[in-house]
Amino acid sequence: MTMTDAAIPFETVTVPLGERSYDILIGDGALAAIGPRIAALYPGSRCVVVTDGRVARLHLDALEAALRASGVDSFASIVPAGERSKSWHGLTTVVDSILGGRLERRDIVIALGGGVIGDLAGFAAAISRRGMDFVQVPTTLLAQVDSSVGGKTGINTEFGKNLVGAFHQPGLVIADTTVLDTLSERHMRAGYAEIAKYGLIDDAAFFSWLEENWTGVFAGGDARRHAIATSCRAKARVVAADEREAGQRALLNLGHTFGHALEAATSYDETRLVHGEGVAIGMAQAFRFSARLGFTETATAERVEAHLLAVGLPTRLADIDGDLPTPEGLAGLMAQDKKVSRGRLTFILARGIGQSFIETGVDAEVLKSFLAEEAALPALATA
Amino acid sequence: MTMTDAAIPFETVTVPLGERSYDILIGDGALAAIGPRIAALYPGSRCVVVTDGRVARLHLDALEAALRASGVDSFASIVPAGERSKSWHGLTTVVDSILGGRLERRDIVIALGGGVIGDLAGFAAAISRRGMDFVQVPTTLLAQVDSSVGGKTGINTEFGKNLVGAFHQPGLVIADTTVLDTLSERHMRAGYAEIAKYGLIDDAAFFSWLEENWTGVFAGGDARRHAIATSCRAKARVVAADEREAGQRALLNLGHTFGHALEAATSYDETRLVHGEGVAIGMAQAFRFSARLGFTETATAERVEAHLLAVGLPTRLADIDGDLPTPEGLAGLMAQDKKVSRGRLTFILARGIGQSFIETGVDAEVLKSFLAEEAALPALATA
Repeated sequence: MTMTDAAIPFETVTVPLGERSYDILIGDGALAAIGPRIAALYPGSRCVVVTDGRVARLHLDALEAALRASGVDSFASIVPAGERSKSWHGLTTVVDSILGGRLERRDIVIALGGGVIGDLAGFAAAISRRGMDFVQVPTTLLAQVDSSVGGKTGINTEFGKNLVGAFHQPGLVIADTTVLDTLSERHMRAGYAEIAKYGLIDDAAFFSWLEENWTGVFAGGDARRHAIATSCRAKARVVAADEREAGQRALLNLGHTFGHALEAATSYDETRLVHGEGVAIGMAQAFRFSARLGFTETATAERVEAHLLAVGLPTRLADIDGDLPTPEGLAGLMAQDKKVSRGRLTFILARGIGQSFIETGVDAEVLKSFLAEEAALPALATA
Repeated sequence: MTMTDAAIPFETVTVPLGERSYDILIGDGALAAIGPRIAALYPGSRCVVVTDGRVARLHLDALEAALRASGVDSFASIVPAGERSKSWHGLTTVVDSILGGRLERRDIVIALGGGVIGDLAGFAAAISRRGMDFVQVPTTLLAQVDSSVGGKTGINTEFGKNLVGAFHQPGLVIADTTVLDTLSERHMRAGYAEIAKYGLIDDAAFFSWLEENWTGVFAGGDARRHAIATSCRAKARVVAADEREAGQRALLNLGHTFGHALEAATSYDETRLVHGEGVAIGMAQAFRFSARLGFTETATAERVEAHLLAVGLPTRLADIDGDLPTPEGLAGLMAQDKKVSRGRLTFILARGIGQSFIETGVDAEVLKSFLAEEAALPALATA
């Protein structure tokens, strides 16, 4: 592996946002390209690498070596692994590292890790010295295809997830597809749920390709790179059209209103449910709800469920271990989700695969009766 | 006083920032206009009024009545008066009020108070739900002519002032000039330092007008409104040209590199020095330093000092009660100021009144020897 880009078959996806446009570099060994890229984009800058203890053990040495090889000075800020670091406490820890390290406004914050690290480091970059540039090096499939792209950053509070944060776009995203080989099968599947989402939102051909090729995405190589690049291109398109989620960007929340409620219902206990699993159940529910409301065929909802199930993802409430709230309780959790506007319930529904749309004004009683039916469905997932 | 704008002789200054442009309403009794303005700009929105205990006693009832009269629902979030509220703790307090009050993304944060409240409430608005609109109702002269306009928001940390924050423009600024009658003479003078600054930066005619009319600014009425409106127009011009301080916006820091160092040197003890007093000394020093470096005449520096002195503002280190650090210590504090770029010292200097410029690369030894001369100057201020 050489240190120059030219010899490496990376795929580049550009997120077109005018003067804030940036590239996503996708491919096996892309991590090694970070040194020359940062040296070229931010000459003379110093970097703080924000990461967690688990990712640091796996990838920090390689990242620091790649930076050093290009003469880029860096130091690390390491927080505990897990969602709890996405908090006011985690935020002040990272900001203190940045300010205590005397980084200046034109220095760089690098996020090395999954979605928690990307959201936390990105938010710390957004508010340190009123905005520093940052670079995302996502190490999970979920982060590579979703959270590292698009500029949403933030932390959780007692009032809910991601209710405190900023829109702050990275200047570069490095998605090294071999890094994913260190992920558990469960976290690969969870990230895959977000890949399938892009097919379901507006790309029926991609969903069909996934039905044929999903084992290749898990195996690595060309199919994995293609799936990640296609997902990033889809997200880039939506973000470019609606950076601050005034409208169509909400389509990216397909499966998320249900999914977030399930994460809250399981107290964010990752032994019971991780985000991508919540999204998988949520997408299956969004299609069943769409069928129930007459927007699409029951067979379409069944096809969506069949693919998620084949991959090993959960699709039903009963697939979650342990007790869940009543249908009324779940509906209440959805009303607390931030995708509520002036008291009306908003859902992303679909008229078919690749034909999602934003439905505002969903009636709370209809939702509750749907959730009661959902609670009665038997478990299916076997993974 | 009627509730409609038409009958009231307000002056309106527009800050031209494309789709984020906003108006500053300036005049006696402007506070009463907030209800119809908010109802028109943000139909159906709820508001949180962020203020401090002191300002709440003076102005909260009037503000809430003005909102209520236009059917705008609001509740208050009150923090302790003083710079200490501009902290992580103050920030989480206000954010908790916003989220605990279940404000949605399109609801409004109103900052009622001086610079501390504006910076704190604006930053809380910037990061709550990834960005809520906010309205500034500045109640000090300093806030009316400086901090409420331009979108700089933030808090202080142990590493320095304003090192954590965001650029987040308000949607409306209401500068009620009669509200200033509740200010102490000392705080009026401190705010006046920032008014004089706009003359010194690039408007020699305005500085001459101030030399003739400053007593009118303190007395109230037309001269006060004219001085505030001229200051806001000057700031709006600079902000529109360079919103995120990539270049010329740094001119607004005239007097501030010296001033911030003095505030740090006095441990932000407002019994010894308030911000505007630090700026007054800093401006006098910037002109003396400019003369020392041969950029302008000694007589120009003397004219600047004479006007500040006439108003009752301090202009020399010896005007500050108690001990100060050595010249080396002061120079060190300036190097910590965030307006340092890649280790070079940057100062705003002047070739004459209204002819300021950005000088990068000031030599640290020359600065120290200048500061030693400054320490030897006798006290002058008599206020």
